[in-house]
Formats: sequence, C-alpha cells, structure tokens
Amino acid sequence: MSRQDGRAPDQLRPVKITRGWISHAEGSVLVEFGGTRVLCAASVQDSVPRWRRGSGQGWVTAEYAMLPRATNTRNDRESVKGKIGGRTHEISRLIGRSLRACVDYKALGENSIVLDCDVLQADGGTRTAAITGAYVALADAVAWMRARKMCPGDPLVDSVAAVSVGVVKSTPMLDLCYVEDVAAETDMNVVMTGSGAFVEVQGTAEGAPFDRRALDELLDLAVAGCEELTLHQQEALGR
Amino acid sequence: MSRQDGRAPDQLRPVKITRGWISHAEGSVLVEFGGTRVLCAASVQDSVPRWRRGSGQGWVTAEYAMLPRATNTRNDRESVKGKIGGRTHEISRLIGRSLRACVDYKALGENSIVLDCDVLQADGGTRTAAITGAYVALADAVAWMRARKMCPGDPLVDSVAAVSVGVVKSTPMLDLCYVEDVAAETDMNVVMTGSGAFVEVQGTAEGAPFDRRALDELLDLAVAGCEELTLHQQEALGR
Amino acid sequence: MSRQDGRAPDQLRPVKITRGWISHAEGSVLVEFGGTRVLCAASVQDSVPRWRRGSGQGWVTAEYAMLPRATNTRNDRESVKGKIGGRTHEISRLIGRSLRACVDYKALGENSIVLDCDVLQADGGTRTAAITGAYVALADAVAWMRARKMCPGDPLVDSVAAVSVGVVKSTPMLDLCYVEDVAAETDMNVVMTGSGAFVEVQGTAEGAPFDRRALDELLDLAVAGCEELTLHQQEALGR
Amino acid sequence: MSRQDGRAPDQLRPVKITRGWISHAEGSVLVEFGGTRVLCAASVQDSVPRWRRGSGQGWVTAEYAMLPRATNTRNDRESVKGKIGGRTHEISRLIGRSLRACVDYKALGENSIVLDCDVLQADGGTRTAAITGAYVALADAVAWMRARKMCPGDPLVDSVAAVSVGVVKSTPMLDLCYVEDVAAETDMNVVMTGSGAFVEVQGTAEGAPFDRRALDELLDLAVAGCEELTLHQQEALGR
Amino acid sequence: MSRQDGRAPDQLRPVKITRGWISHAEGSVLVEFGGTRVLCAASVQDSVPRWRRGSGQGWVTAEYAMLPRATNTRNDRESVKGKIGGRTHEISRLIGRSLRACVDYKALGENSIVLDCDVLQADGGTRTAAITGAYVALADAVAWMRARKMCPGDPLVDSVAAVSVGVVKSTPMLDLCYVEDVAAETDMNVVMTGSGAFVEVQGTAEGAPFDRRALDELLDLAVAGCEELTLHQQEALGR
Amino acid sequence: MSRQDGRAPDQLRPVKITRGWISHAEGSVLVEFGGTRVLCAASVQDSVPRWRRGSGQGWVTAEYAMLPRATNTRNDRESVKGKIGGRTHEISRLIGRSLRACVDYKALGENSIVLDCDVLQADGGTRTAAITGAYVALADAVAWMRARKMCPGDPLVDSVAAVSVGVVKSTPMLDLCYVEDVAAETDMNVVMTGSGAFVEVQGTAEGAPFDRRALDELLDLAVAGCEELTLHQQEALGR
Repeated sequence: MSRQDGRAPDQLRPVKITRGWISHAEGSVLVEFGGTRVLCAASVQDSVPRWRRGSGQGWVTAEYAMLPRATNTRNDRESVKGKIGGRTHEISRLIGRSLRACVDYKALGENSIVLDCDVLQADGGTRTAAITGAYVALADAVAWMRARKMCPGDPLVDSVAAVSVGVVKSTPMLDLCYVEDVAAETDMNVVMTGSGAFVEVQGTAEGAPFDRRALDELLDLAVAGCEELTLHQQEALGR
Repeated sequence: MSRQDGRAPDQLRPVKITRGWISHAEGSVLVEFGGTRVLCAASVQDSVPRWRRGSGQGWVTAEYAMLPRATNTRNDRESVKGKIGGRTHEISRLIGRSLRACVDYKALGENSIVLDCDVLQADGGTRTAAITGAYVALADAVAWMRARKMCPGDPLVDSVAAVSVGVVKSTPMLDLCYVEDVAAETDMNVVMTGSGAFVEVQGTAEGAPFDRRALDELLDLAVAGCEELTLHQQEALGR
Repeated sequence: MSRQDGRAPDQLRPVKITRGWISHAEGSVLVEFGGTRVLCAASVQDSVPRWRRGSGQGWVTAEYAMLPRATNTRNDRESVKGKIGGRTHEISRLIGRSLRACVDYKALGENSIVLDCDVLQADGGTRTAAITGAYVALADAVAWMRARKMCPGDPLVDSVAAVSVGVVKSTPMLDLCYVEDVAAETDMNVVMTGSGAFVEVQGTAEGAPFDRRALDELLDLAVAGCEELTLHQQEALGR
Repeated sequence: MSRQDGRAPDQLRPVKITRGWISHAEGSVLVEFGGTRVLCAASVQDSVPRWRRGSGQGWVTAEYAMLPRATNTRNDRESVKGKIGGRTHEISRLIGRSLRACVDYKALGENSIVLDCDVLQADGGTRTAAITGAYVALADAVAWMRARKMCPGDPLVDSVAAVSVGVVKSTPMLDLCYVEDVAAETDMNVVMTGSGAFVEVQGTAEGAPFDRRALDELLDLAVAGCEELTLHQQEALGR
Repeated sequence: MSRQDGRAPDQLRPVKITRGWISHAEGSVLVEFGGTRVLCAASVQDSVPRWRRGSGQGWVTAEYAMLPRATNTRNDRESVKGKIGGRTHEISRLIGRSLRACVDYKALGENSIVLDCDVLQADGGTRTAAITGAYVALADAVAWMRARKMCPGDPLVDSVAAVSVGVVKSTPMLDLCYVEDVAAETDMNVVMTGSGAFVEVQGTAEGAPFDRRALDELLDLAVAGCEELTLHQQEALGR
Repeated sequence: MSRQDGRAPDQLRPVKITRGWISHAEGSVLVEFGGTRVLCAASVQDSVPRWRRGSGQGWVTAEYAMLPRATNTRNDRESVKGKIGGRTHEISRLIGRSLRACVDYKALGENSIVLDCDVLQADGGTRTAAITGAYVALADAVAWMRARKMCPGDPLVDSVAAVSVGVVKSTPMLDLCYVEDVAAETDMNVVMTGSGAFVEVQGTAEGAPFDRRALDELLDLAVAGCEELTLHQQEALGR
C-alpha cells in the first residue's frame, strides 16, 4: 500500500518544531507537518475574561486562521468578508478545548494565555499541527510566566498532541496530507495527552459510513502517532 | 446508579416525533427528547448552490438555532448581535453533514433541501434531537418531491439518528439531560445510520481525559440508543 | 360578502391562547389567530438598561422574529444575513411600545421584562397576535415577580390587545388572513387597551388612498375586535 | 393656548421649499419646516430591482438618515456602528411607501427613482418634512425623465404631503416642533394626497392612551395642514 | 494654459466660508471651494476616549462622509452597506491628524472635539475643503468652550488649511476641480499651518511617476494656495 | 548621531529577500527589513473585477494585514472584530497603487494579480517592506504567467521600492525601526520606481509641523534608500 509521498500507512510526515520563531510573543513556534506550516504564538495577559474575574482561576483560548494564499487557490480574507466562517470557528474552539485539557486553572492564577495559530502553508492536518505546535508555545509562555513568578503553581499538568487519521482507498492511514484528506472515506482527528488519554475524538464519514472495526483501527494508528508527536514536543523543549 | 429523573443509565428519555407540525414546509417535525423540543422544517428548492450547478446532483444543508428563551436564562439573538456564534455554526455543519450521509445526490437531481432546526426548549441533547427529527422531516420532503416526480430516483439510501452519551460521576450514561451534560466528565455525540454504521463520533473530555475503555463503553451505549431512535423514526413514518 | 374561510366581515378567526407553553420563561404563551401561531416568552431581569439605572423605574421591551419556514416560501435567517431587516425592527418596536402602554414603570421597580415573540407559523396578523399573546405572557411574568415580591407595586395598569383590519374588494374586514392581507387596498393595525382607548393606529394605503369614511369603518371594526380579544385574554388568565 | 414659538395650535411653522439645491441630482430640494431642514435628492436609474425586471414597471424607494450633529447632542454615525437602527429603517420605509402612493409604475417604465432624505438640522417633524420635500424632488426628477422621453406616460398621478399632529398638554396641535414632540401625550403622523385622501395614518400614545374624539380632532388638524402643504408644493413647482 | 472654468493655473476657485450654518453644533461651517460644498460641525464633549482618561489632556477627532448624491452618480450609503470604505477611513484619519497639528491637548483639558465633515456636493478637493472648513468650526467650538471656561488654556496654537494641487496635461495647477482631478497625472494634497509649515504632504502618481522638479513646483503652488486659504479663514473669523 | 542599533542616519537595516517562501502562490517572498518580516504572496487570477471586464486590460490589487502577535502586545483580529480598521485599509490601498505604477494593464491582458502582504513580525516600516517585497513576488508571478503565455506582452514596465524616512531628535534618518518611528517628529513614506521617479510621497508631522528644508533632506535620504532597495530586488531576482 504505497502513499503518494512514499510513506508507510502508519508513518508521520517529517515533523519540525522551531521555537522562538517570532520575537515579540511570550512563546512562539513554527510547526511543520510535511508541507503544512503553522505559526503558533502564545500571548500572556495578566487578566481574565469578565465571567472569570474574581475566581482566582486563569483561562486559555485559541484563534485559528489561514493566510489567504496558504492554500492552492486564494481564499478571501475573513476580515474582508466581515465574518468568520464556520470552519474557522470550529477549529479555534477545538484548539482551545484541547489545550485547556492540560492546564490547571488555579495554578495559572488570574492570567490568560491566547494561542494564535496562523496557517502559513496548508497541506492537510492544519488543525492537528496547530494543536501540537501550540502546546510547545504554551509551554514556553508558561515558563516565561514562572520565571516572573506570575503563577501560584505549575499550570501544565500534562502535554497535548494531535494527529489526523483516515481511511483512504480502504486503508487506514496516519497523518493525511491534502490529497489523501480529499480522497478519504473516513476522516478522524484525535487529540491525546502525553500520558496517553483521549482529549478529543472527532470521526466523520466523508464518503461512506464506517463500522466499529475501522474506528478501532484508526484509533490504534492515532494513539501511536500522538505518542511519536509527544516525543517531538519533548525534544523541542529540550526534555 | 440513579439518575435525577429516575432513568437507568442506558435508558433514553421519552421520545416524541410529531409530523406535519407546521403547515407551509414540505416536511416538518416537532421532535421531543424529554424536555428538549426542536422544530425541524424541511424546505425544498428546485435549484442548487452555484458551485453545484450543471452537475445533475442535489444538495442538502441545515441551519440550527435556538430561540432566546429556549434556555434557563435568556440568550441574546444572533440576528441582533449581527453574527452567528461558533457553537451555532458548528452544530449547523454537523446536522448538514449527518443528513447528507443518507442522501444519494444523483437520485435527488438538481434540487436542494434545507433543514431548519429551531430549538424551542432546551434540556440537553439539542443537536442529537435535531438530527433525529430532521431525518423524519427530510423523509417527508423527499416523499413530497417524489409525489411530484421531481427526483430522478430515490434520494434516501438509509436513515440517520443521533444520541449523546457521557460519563457522569464515573458512570457512562445515555441521552444526557442538561444537568447531566453540565456535570459530565466526558461527553460524546454519536450519529449513526439505520443500518448500524457510524456517521459521526465526537467525543470531548470536558473534565478529565478519558481512556480507551471509557470510549468503548460510551460507543456501546450510543449504538443501542441510535437503534432505538431509528425504531421511533420508522414508527413515526408509519413503516 | 363571503370570505375565503367563510367568516363574516366582522368576525375574528378562532383565537387560542395557551399559557406556560415553554418551561423556562417566567411567562410564556402560544397564541393562535387561525393559522398564525406565535410563541411569546417573557423574561424577567433584575436590572434595567444603562440609561434607566438609578431611576427606580423599570423597562419593558420586545423582540419579534420569524422562523425561516413560518411562511409559504423559506426566508433567509437574519442571523445569517448578519442584520435585522426594516420590517422586523419596525414590528419589534411596535410590540414594545404597545405593551409599555399598560405598564407602570415605578410599580415595576428597577426590573426589565423582555418579550420575545417568535412566529412559528404565519398566516397574516402576526404582529397583532404577538401583541395580544405577549400581554398574557407579561401578565404571567408580573405575577411571578409579585409572588417573589420583586415589585414595589402592581405594574399592570390595564391590558393591551391588537387586531388588523382592512378594506378588501371594497369591504372593510376584521382580522385579515394572509391572502386577504395581500389583496387589501387598505390595511390597518390597531392596538387598544382593555379599557377601550387607543394605543396605536397604523393605517396604510396599500393600493389606493382611503377616505375618512373608510377610516371610520375600519376603526369601528377594530374596536369591536379588540374588545373580543380582551375577553379571550381575561379568560386565558382565569379572570 | 400659546405655543412656545407663539403659533396658534392649528398653525404650521414657516415652510420653505428650495428646488435645485444640489447640482448633480435629477431632482433636489432643501425643505424647511421651521428649524427642521432636510435635503431631499431624487436619483433616476434606468433599471429596476431584480424582482421587478421584465415587468415593464418601475419602482420608487427612499432612504432617510440624519447627519450626526443634526440634533442637540451628537449621534454616532450608523455607518460607523455598522448597522442601521430601527427608527431609520422605519422612516425610510414610510417615506418610500408614501411616495409610491402617487406613482403609476407602468407610466414610469422600467426605471427607478431613489429618494435620499438627509436631515441636516432636526427640530421635530423630520419625517413629514422629508415626505413633503421628497415629493417636489420626485416631481423634478420625473420632469427630467419626461424631457428625455424615458417614461411611457406620466408617472405622477397625484401629489403627496405629510404633517405631524399631537396632543400637548391636552391641546391638539399641528406640526409639532421638538420640544412639543417630546411633551406630547399622543403623536400622529399623517400622509395625504393632494386630492385629499389618506395614505398613512400613524398615531401613537406616547403618554396615555387616547380616545376616539382626540383621534378625530387630530385628523381634522392634519387634513388642514396637508392641504396647506400641498399649496406650498404647488407654489414651489410653479403651478 | 486655460482651465475649463477659465482660472489661471495658480488660482483658487471661489472660496466661501459660512459660519453658524446649523444651530445645534458648538461650531459649524458650510465651506465651499467652487462647486464643492462641505458641512463641518464641531461637537464638544466633556470627556475623552478611554485610553486618554486621567491624562489631563484632550483629544480631537474627525469623521468624513459623503451624502449618496453628492456626486454625479449615486453611491450606496456606507450605513446600508454595513461598513465604511477605505477611502472614507483614509480621509477621516487625514482630517483628524491635520487638525490635531494646531491643538495643544493640555490647554484643551480632558475634553474632546469631534469634527463631522459631510460632503453635500462634490466637485474635487472635498478633503482639502473639509480641513479648511473644519478649522473654522473648531475655532468656533474652542471659543464656545473658552466662554464657558471649560479649558485650562488656549488650545489653538496655530491655524490649519489644505489645498490640492496636481499636474494636468503637463501643467501644475492649484485646487483641482473634479474633471481636472480625474485627468491629473499627479495629484497632491498639502496641509499647512497658518504659520507656513507643512502638516501633511501626500503626493500620488495617478498616471506616470513624477520627478523632483514637478514635486517642487506643486509644493510652490500649494504653499501659495494655503496662504490664501488662511486669509479666508481669518476673514471668516473676523480677525 | 548614533542610532539605537548603531546604524548611520542614512543607513538601511539589513535587507533580506527570500523568494519562493510558500509553495502554492505563483510568486511569494519573505522580505525582511531588520526585525520587520512580511510574507508577500502574489496570486494570479484569469479574470478581472466586474468594472474591468471586456476592456482587454488587467488589474493589480493588494491586501495588507498583521498577524495578531506581530507586535509587542497582541492586537485583536480584524476578522473577529468583523471589520477592517482604517490603518489597514489605508496601507492596502497604498500598496496596490504603488505596484500598479509599474504595470502595463494592456500587456497584462484580462488577468488579475492579488498581492497579499501579511506582517509576521513588525518593527517599523512594514508598509515599505511590503511594497518592496511585493514587487519581487509580482515579478515572479508575471514570469509564471509569461511562461504560460497568459499575457499579450510584458506587463512590468519598471520596478517599485519603498522606504520610510523621518526626523528623530532633529536628525533626518533613513528606514526607521519601531522605537525611532514612535519618537519621530516627522515621518515620511516614499515609493519610487527603479528608474528614479516618485510614485508616492506621504509626509506627516507627527509632532511639530516641518519646513521645506526638512522635507528636502528627507526626500534626499529616501531617494538614496530606494536606489539601494532596488539593487536588493534586482539581486534577489538574479538580474
């Protein structure tokens, strides 16, 4: 079963995590999953949203976007259209929820961290690359805060990574690139903690509905993929 | 393990599907899952979106919304705010994708069906009730079209139903009501075809990440729940 | 002079007022004028708009909307269009003004009541049905507040009801249904108090301008219609 | 019964209608009702809205707006707020409907006339001044079209004028200025044709509901006021 | 080198500055540069934007807009389109910056002045007319404030005027009207203080890029033009 | 006169132009002026805006934006705010106008090129870096088109580069970084062609108005700076 770029079905694309890619942010990472390139910037704010004030607890949120020419044909800017599309909303919410799974709000204190994930070049798996990279940016921002004694404790209770899996021409495959994603009958995004538990499982029958066995095979691939991505994150962080 | 309304963990709330609830729509259903009440209206249009024209194929889409006082405290209208929130976008997209899983676009011809799912009263599971009810409204709209010979074939290749499951106080439970949903550590929405395959699996760790066993138990509950909902749909349709 | 549904020119359609139609709102009513069905929900808030603060006085406001398939052909959602249309604005303002005519702001204290009037099915006269039903929802919300001793006095100084009248094929008629409304040369909406005074008189020459005699005849019909609607309201409220 | 500016209750403020006030528009009028000053511009377009195409019939529409400092305190621009308020919508619709009452769409041919009514200075009665002035601008635009033989016939079948009336301190009064408008218990805007028929009657109980006799007295005042305004229009048009 | 209206290349159009054109504003001016007519209203507010609070310093800002039929063909309203165009934004910012060049924020105290510049009729040079007129409105508003002892000192340290220049058919010309502006190869707007210094120089090659000599000739023309406009301002202000 | 980074007053920051930085665009450049980093992507479209159709001529336009954390503190996204700010509009328009100065529309044929300039990291001079980089991306896109014989001729008649200059602490300086820009009394952006003519000159008195001599000194610096940038562009393009 050969893939267009010669990978084995259970093989990730080359992963590259570059820390400190922009100078202003408290944490910043350029993450690459093959041709997918996402710039993740973590911004620390010493305040929390209104509904959170006085709770002694912090907040983590995320915004995802694509540059107009990250894709093969140009997309109009959402700022020009004057509204954010459903897909953008959905992915921003997913990234935020995923990262909050490894955060202890009390240890963070009444501070916020915003994770901006901007896709500079897209080749499938942009949301999973964003989550994987954003965790590293988050870790750097947390280190920055702790060096300044902004947090009452250690807000990071685990790590988080994500990968896409899918059934392409009846074969379950790991980390789909764009052409595989388009051809996939079933597509699943899986977010896991470094300790091996699930944070999100989002499976969608793009073509035909799928049975329990396909679901299980995809989960097996994803578990292995997330483990490998966790190692990449640890290595990038020098652990 | 008692639930607040006395149900067993694997028990659905009372399900009620009332067809023809409004007179103008080609198909309309008031679906009730306990205290959750959603009005689903199917509107037939003899045209397709621009990108679909000339393909000989149809399209099915959905829009989800909540009345301001469907919930315990009043929510501002999205029309007044001037934009649709991320949650609304996400659910509208989910409903559309789910129903398209049982549609043969060629047999539909170049026609569209829009499914409007408006929550009149919310008590948890509004998106799964919406999908389950919308299928019945869709079936009525398709019958209306076929009676007028608008379709080249039978556009409905299967049925679709959905249910929520979750882990509440360490117990996996079927069809969460609002207070259970809020208390759930893990929350999953599962959409299945009448023939027993998965269309969507969306599991989220609200509190703590979950392991593979919890995932499997939730899927078991959901499979049984969707089977039962499929029976309710068939009964409502007089099959 | 026969009407399409066999009514006499001075006859209302069947009126039905169902209280407590949804469970969360402090007052809620499903009001039906023949095929027109409007869900009116009254939401109590223990605060007032900014410009009203510190005055010791309350406020009552209304929002009107139509479900997309309340009408014969589907209308796009105003939330999707990103703005509220002129007609919606106009009717929301009319409903709010009408109900404020029976409210004593001081007796209400610094509390607000929002009346959401959502048209589930439209067959002419949606704004007059909304006003007539919203009064009953308002009365229930006020009773709810008074049971909790939220108000310094009795905020309801009168009742309010509304009806449409029009000249169709040269005949003045009461409570126009949709096909009559479309055919009307002149169309008038009249809002009155239970004690028989006018709150709003809005007459429009849809086809040809009208003379003083036609205006007088329409007012006579409307006065009688509002009296009858007031009785329906009293009966629904068990008075 | 003295009014603040010394007028009798049944007396209009000084009316001034200046034609050709701006050079680009096919018809333009600066209309003044005392301190209220509205610039009315009529723009001819040789096309009609999409829903009107191929009908052989024309269309007339209006847009009303206020400059930010037309009023005593500055109002934010609706363009800056990004949306049009309910009051603006309501008045634009009223002006459009009013002027359409004197137009024969077939004689206009498939052409449109847009009437822009911009309030430069406001002192009560801006909508009635706008209607009264817009008719004159419309007449000039129609003359411009007829000189170019753009219309199959004479599109103006009558003239239209409007005035406000109200009950202030229990006295019915004609053509309220701002301070009277604010103090009015009842407020009514009446639009009439030059031939003496009603186009719009919009009466509102601002303070206390009103009885039939007050309504009749206000209508009497309005009829006389509109007759006088019609003479002003005729004089301005040199008839 | 004759111009279409017979002016010499270095000649301004007739300038007319009418103070107190509307009654509500603290300062108001109708400024005319030939056929260009702009209404400038200065509104005093005893507060400053949030970011300025507690600084003891004031703020001056401007908003520019055009009536829909100020131009030869009608433009849609920005309020109806729901957003402000780039050109409007750009000119509003230019006017605000220009006027702030003659203001001492400390002497103004924590007060704001908003300058609304609405183009009633456009014939080229609307932004330069707006700046020139807005200065006079600003001076009147400042006098109004000083009469009420609202300012700790004299906030006006200089005056500001502006003019357009351009190269038309290879000839540098002062104060372009619309047809010249359209034909200009190079177009420059110059804002200067009454004391002869530059506040803004904005030159644009509309057709072909321009050399240093053309730039110098245009600046010479602009300097003389602004001097003359300054005299008009002084005269209008009775100095 | 030492600058904070040790440069001479007439010295550019290190300039780096990396072509082909993203894979999908027909031309793409990462341009760096010291710490300012802008990604410029040129997208070719075989169509023109509606108003240009049938003219046989092409069009070139630009959109400028900043990532939220390109700056020292995070800025809210314009897509989230739902509207584009004045500064963004202004710069997008400047970039488009500047690049059109070197384009022969007829030689381009009825094709469009959109230049997206996204600031990844900002340290002053983002608009001038964007113009300078966008020209190179444009040249690559034109080469791509010519290789496919899409253009009737050579659409590039010249090159375009831009630089900022300003007076800081009374010293005229070239290519201001952020801290210099903030401190500048006068700030000017100059766009020039490779052949040495001016395309845009935009000078603004940020602090005190400036005299003719300061203007001349700034122009001298800018001319030299643009010449040097033109060499960088030629070198990047391998000429």
